[in-house]
This record gives sequence, structure tokens and C-alpha cells, in this order.
Amino acid sequence: MDVNRLNLRDDDRGQDRPAHPGTFPTSDAGNSVPQAAERSIDFPVSVVLPAGGTGERTGLQTPKQFCLLLGRPLISYTIQAFERVSWIQRIVVVVAQESVALMTDILRRFRHRKVRVVPGGSTRHRSIRNGVMALEDGEDGTSPAAGKPKVVLLHDAVRPFVEEDFLYKIAMAAEEQGAAGAVRPLVSTVIAATPEGYLDRSLERAEYRASEMPQGFTYDVIRRAYQRCSESDLDFGTECLHLALQYCGTNAKLVQGPPTLWKVTYKRDLAAAESIIKETLSRTACLIPGPSGDAAALADALREALGALGMELDVLPDLMRENTRCLEKWNFIQVSVDCSRLSEVETLLSVLEAANQAPLHPLVVIWVHLSASDELSVNAAAPAAIRDLASAAERRNVLVYAIQLQQSKETTRWEKSVLKAAEITSALIRDRSSALVGQLLQA
Amino acid sequence: MDVNRLNLRDDDRGQDRPAHPGTFPTSDAGNSVPQAAERSIDFPVSVVLPAGGTGERTGLQTPKQFCLLLGRPLISYTIQAFERVSWIQRIVVVVAQESVALMTDILRRFRHRKVRVVPGGSTRHRSIRNGVMALEDGEDGTSPAAGKPKVVLLHDAVRPFVEEDFLYKIAMAAEEQGAAGAVRPLVSTVIAATPEGYLDRSLERAEYRASEMPQGFTYDVIRRAYQRCSESDLDFGTECLHLALQYCGTNAKLVQGPPTLWKVTYKRDLAAAESIIKETLSRTACLIPGPSGDAAALADALREALGALGMELDVLPDLMRENTRCLEKWNFIQVSVDCSRLSEVETLLSVLEAANQAPLHPLVVIWVHLSASDELSVNAAAPAAIRDLASAAERRNVLVYAIQLQQSKETTRWEKSVLKAAEITSALIRDRSSALVGQLLQA
Repeated sequence: MDVNRLNLRDDDRGQDRPAHPGTFPTSDAGNSVPQAAERSIDFPVSVVLPAGGTGERTGLQTPKQFCLLLGRPLISYTIQAFERVSWIQRIVVVVAQESVALMTDILRRFRHRKVRVVPGGSTRHRSIRNGVMALEDGEDGTSPAAGKPKVVLLHDAVRPFVEEDFLYKIAMAAEEQGAAGAVRPLVSTVIAATPEGYLDRSLERAEYRASEMPQGFTYDVIRRAYQRCSESDLDFGTECLHLALQYCGTNAKLVQGPPTLWKVTYKRDLAAAESIIKETLSRTACLIPGPSGDAAALADALREALGALGMELDVLPDLMRENTRCLEKWNFIQVSVDCSRLSEVETLLSVLEAANQAPLHPLVVIWVHLSASDELSVNAAAPAAIRDLASAAERRNVLVYAIQLQQSKETTRWEKSVLKAAEITSALIRDRSSALVGQLLQA
Repeated sequence: MDVNRLNLRDDDRGQDRPAHPGTFPTSDAGNSVPQAAERSIDFPVSVVLPAGGTGERTGLQTPKQFCLLLGRPLISYTIQAFERVSWIQRIVVVVAQESVALMTDILRRFRHRKVRVVPGGSTRHRSIRNGVMALEDGEDGTSPAAGKPKVVLLHDAVRPFVEEDFLYKIAMAAEEQGAAGAVRPLVSTVIAATPEGYLDRSLERAEYRASEMPQGFTYDVIRRAYQRCSESDLDFGTECLHLALQYCGTNAKLVQGPPTLWKVTYKRDLAAAESIIKETLSRTACLIPGPSGDAAALADALREALGALGMELDVLPDLMRENTRCLEKWNFIQVSVDCSRLSEVETLLSVLEAANQAPLHPLVVIWVHLSASDELSVNAAAPAAIRDLASAAERRNVLVYAIQLQQSKETTRWEKSVLKAAEITSALIRDRSSALVGQLLQA
């Protein structure tokens, strides 16, 4: 077996990928199979997201919940994962006092609704308590009763990939049992150490679980637990399920969660999270052939080559007549027959701007154009025109790149060019590099 | 505070990065401060690396130890982390019978020495036992006594970033105590569940540790433990420290390890590992200005701009006279005054080929050339010449890209071009994209 045949970018979907791209509320809705995620809940559910951490373990100056992934703070992805769930009514984000203004700015820029910011306390438990208490107030602090939920979900701001399906399980179990929490099998053996730092004993792995997030509580249980617990609990405790057991006698239902619940802890986890987001954004693209037969033929060939690279393409013959479904993608490939057709890209950019798709994630627009064999040397103005267009688009969070193919009657050469164009397209879509915006690449 | 000011690519080094890039044995040796890593050990130490896992949790068809990171299997990075330690004598890699040929091929392609492949058993413990027993044989099965080590280190093939410093601590503790193991603080609270799936109790986090790898044992302890343990231990057990305790009465010394010991478990971890490797490869580059004053000025400006982007540059005025120290980099930037100077890149490529640096990681060579303002349209042959050169180089694992800057007397415009060239350079070095090889980019 040749190691060249092994490939990191395997086609299989890793189990740590969200089955639904929870962070991207609209783009894939058309393809989804109805499942548990679409069941609804008929009692009021609200969410408390403690986000007061300092991110010591990432080694970064910026707390990890505020680190940018593709230009957007991690916490914004997490908020969106809850916001898109129809049966969740309100979200309270608890941040350190000094981050309130930053958090408010994030809510505005990324158009979050349902969300309120509350200043945290000196420990995790005090912060969560502040969040829970804030749910008693109305939206503007005036109507206490209206806001009170039946169930409160707690989650970490740094676990962005939680899915509706699992939130449903936790909310239902919490309503039935008073408390419920996500667990995962232990990854490492847990051992007890002697005070001198020697092995005392190892625990039987099968009997224990790692307690993860989200957790759910009836409002009465979580409020009572925080009213009754001691100052020492508030200072040194970490486990809310433990408070519910100790102060309300509630044995939480434990629900095994998927690996997607994983917590962004170290700097490497930011890279992992960004790769998951990029991969999710890169699965599909919208392909727009120009009106000519040559363009349609190139578009077909590209679709096939990109399909072999694992990308699914929707072909959109008439951009102007299309409803908005196909525009809810994150990647667009405009095929033109010569490089004077920059106007086709301009039209696409106007349509995208009108559809107002760009703000949440950078969109990628790739202009693939076919040219007669020696055109490159003749039309020296094209690269500058593309760069200008791309600079303007980048300000609206759209990344424009261009790829030029030479027309060729020789089949092998032509197929090689199409394959190269597909490889470049795939790499540009996957990497979403702003340094390469406006470049004219040769296939 | 504006969220635009936050940045994922923060300058701080995350604590999950190796302090020394353990996977890159030569490149940074010149800069290193002498430290514990350079202490030696005067008793024989060998290593057993169980690598028989099927990688179920990654969701990939390829077991994760064989997944490629920048074209090289994960296990090859791990092997190199041990191979570069002078006081480690032999490494036994234990793989499933069906992977023996693949593993042997990897050892040859990536030029590993000190390593022997042994077929595994049906469980983790049986595989480790096979590896330990294999240490009794000589290199070729003929001289039993010669090969027997004083201490055996066990490690996972999927923890590639272990450092010499920490291996030293484990080996010394094992020699003193009979057994030693890496531990990490628990990330999640560990809870015990009732048989019905409800919370029974949560453990006091401070009293427990996660048991990680590497572990070390005197040869006598590990051999005796495997000789005495039951079939049930071999079938269902996972913890070697536990066998040493139960069958040899040895309480292992627990040593707190750094977060770099983390285990590649899910597909996202492969992305995280690749990002760490890419970041480590991208920290420094070698800058080669051509002979003219214009080239030297551009090289200076580029060095400053790349420095601001976090890259450290060694300037190499005369390539041919240089000793090999500077050639032990992974990135090279050749600055030329016009695009007819492709010969300067050709010379660089020959020197690199002679220095034989490429096989372990893809090298990046970026040709930055300055052109009079309208040259692009005149010299249409240049892009094709670059592409041909780049295709040939790629077969030797060298990725060649070109960047063209237009000469400008207008200061603002010139500075903007230099900054753009630096951004493109930095992105190309970081991404190491094979799809973009041979492209001529405009700054």
C-alpha cells in the first residue's frame, strides 16, 4: 500500500462534525431530512451562557470566546446555535464587567436577537447565578412574570457546535426530571494520586462519565439551588448538577452527547473549530454559467471535477430569475467565455448585495473565464480591473478571485486545465484567504 | 472596544505548542537555549509505540496514525520526536498485521532509523506486550542480551508533539521508582452514574488526574507485569500503570505533563495538529536578495513588513558562499529585479536539491520580482516558464510561487505593494497549498 493514497481530506464525515451545520442557519435547510431537531417544545425555555472566562489555557491575550474565526467571534457562533432554535425564547450571555461593551457590539454587528448581556460575578457559579436571576426580569426589566421560563439551559460560550436535536433531549429530560446534563465517555483513565504524587488507584472507566455541557434545569430547581447553596459552593464549586443534587435532592438525568459538544480550551482548538467552520462552508457552491454554449460546457466539466473533489454544486442558469434559495450559499462560481465579461461578475455581486447574504461569513466569488490562447498578453487591463472590483467587494465581506483557462482543442491539455481550475477553486473556497483576493490565477 | 482588533492569529504562543518544534529536528537548533532537554541519560532506554488503533473516532477510513499531515503520516512525526533524542536507543512500533507493509514503507520513505516494526495482538495490552517482548531480541533476532534496555518508554503513536525534556523526566522517574506516568488535570468534572443513568455523585476534581502518555517502566517491571497478569487483564484492561501496581507492587510516580501531550482522537484533532505543524514551519524564512541595490532595498522592506506579520527572516546575501545553517529552513524568498531573472530561482532550487532538505516537509520557495511598470503585458512567456519550473520542483517536494511588484516612485503606492507582497508571502508560506503552485501573483 502506497502512503500517497492516504489522505487527510478524507471524504468520510468525521463524527466530530455537526450533522447539521448548526452555525449556518439558512444555507443547508433545503437538503435536510426531517428529524428530531424539528420537534418542538411547548413550554418556555431560556438559555444562560456564561462567557466570563479569561482563556488562560489558550495562551492568547484575547479570551477565547472572543477570538475571531473567519472574522467572527467564537461566541457569536455559539449564540447562533441557540438563536436558530424556534422554541428557545431568550438567551442571557454573562460576561465580565469589562467585556459588556464588547459583547454588546458583537450582538449588534452580527445581528443577534433574543439576547441580553448581564455582567458576571467573581466565579463561574456567581456568574451563572446572575444569569439565572436575570431571567426573572422582563426584556426591559419591567415585567418579571412574563420572562420566567419553565426550563433553563446552561451551556459554555466556547462549545459552538451544539445541535438542536441534542438541546431538545436535554430540555425534555430537564422538564421531566428537574435536571439533566450531557455526559461523554472518559477519554483517559482517571487515577487517584497519593498526596506524595504516586499512583494510588485507577478508576474503572466504565463506571464514570465526563460531565459536559449543555445542562438543563427547571427554573425552580436551579433557582432554589442557588438560593440555598453556601458561599463556599459559589467560590469553589464548578458542577451545577451537584448543586441540584445537594440542595434540591434532584438526581440529574445523564444524556450521552455527541463529540461535537467538545469545548474550545487550547489554542489548537481554535484551529480545529475554524477548520470545521471552513469545511462546513465549503461543501457546496452555486455555479453560474454564462449564456454561451462554451460557458455551459466548461461549467459542466467544472461541476464534474469539483464533484470528484467532494464539492456539491447547484447550477443556476439564470441568476436574475432565480428565487433566493440558491443564493443562500457561501460560494459562487461565475463562468464566462472571455475576460471582457467582467460585467457578469459585477451583476452577481449586485444580486448578492441585494440578497444581503454576506455579513455573517465571508462569501467567496470565483470568476472562471475562458480565453482564446494568447489573450493574456493582449488584455493587460483585466488584472487591474479585477483587483479594483475585488477591493470594493472585500469591504462588503465578499472575497473575489479570478481564474483564467486557455481554450484548447487538444483533449488532454484541456482536461488538465479544467482539473487545475477545479483544484484552484476548491483551495480558494476552502482557505478563504484575504491575502489572495483580486488575484488572477492561471489554470 | 472594536471586535476588529481581536485576532485569532495572536502573537502569543499558545501553551499547547511545543516549546521546541520537536518534529523538526534541525531547523531551529541554532536558536535554542540549553535546557533540560540536553541532559543525557546513561542507562539504555527503548520505546514501544503501539499503533494498532483503527481510528473509529475520527470517522475516517484511514486509521489516524496513518493520516497525512502535509504529505507525511502522523506516526512519522511521532517517531521523529523519539528518534531525535540521543539517549533513546531503539523504537519498536507495533501495528496490526495488515499494516506491517505500510509501516515498513513509511519508515523507508521518511528515512527513519532505530525503528523496528512488530505485528500487534488483538487488544492494546497484547500489542504492547508484543512490543516489550520484541525488545529482548537483538536488531536481527540474534543477540538477545545486547538489546535489553534498562527503561522502556510507552507512548501513543497519535501524540506527535512530545518533547525531549518531558521524556527525560519520565525516564528518570521510571528508573528510580520502577514506573512513572504522565498526568494532566481533569478538564471536565468526572461523575458516577447510577445503573439507570442518573447522577450518583461527582468526584472532587482536585483529587484525581487524567492518566496520559508517555509512561516509563524499568524493563523488569513491565515484563513481569505482562508475565503475571491475567487473560482478562490482557483483554479488557487499558492502564499499564495499573498492571505494574497490581502485579509488581510498584506505585508509579505521576508527573504532570504539558498540554502538548494531547492525543489526536477526532478528525478535528488532525486539523489542529496540521495547524501546529504549519505554524511551526512558518515562523522563519530565509531571504535572498539579488545582487542589485533595488533588490536589496526591496528585500529590506519585505523583511520589515514580514516581521510585522510575525515572521522572522534570515537574510542571506550570497547563497553560494553560505554554509548550510541557513539552508536548514523550510521557506525561502528570492528577490529579483526583473522577471528575466528566473535563473536566480533556478540556482536556489539547485542549491536546495544539493542540500537535500525537502523530503520531510514541503519546502516553500517564493520568487518576488520587481518589474518596470508595464512589463507584465510585454513578457507573456514568464508565467509559462514559472509554471514549468514549479511543476518540476513539486516532484521534489518544493512548492514554488511567484509574486510580481510594479516599481513605483509614489511612496504610498510602493508601500502598499510591499505590504501586499508580504501578506501574500505570509499566506503562501502558512497555507502551503499545492493547488496554487506555479502561480504568478500581483502585489
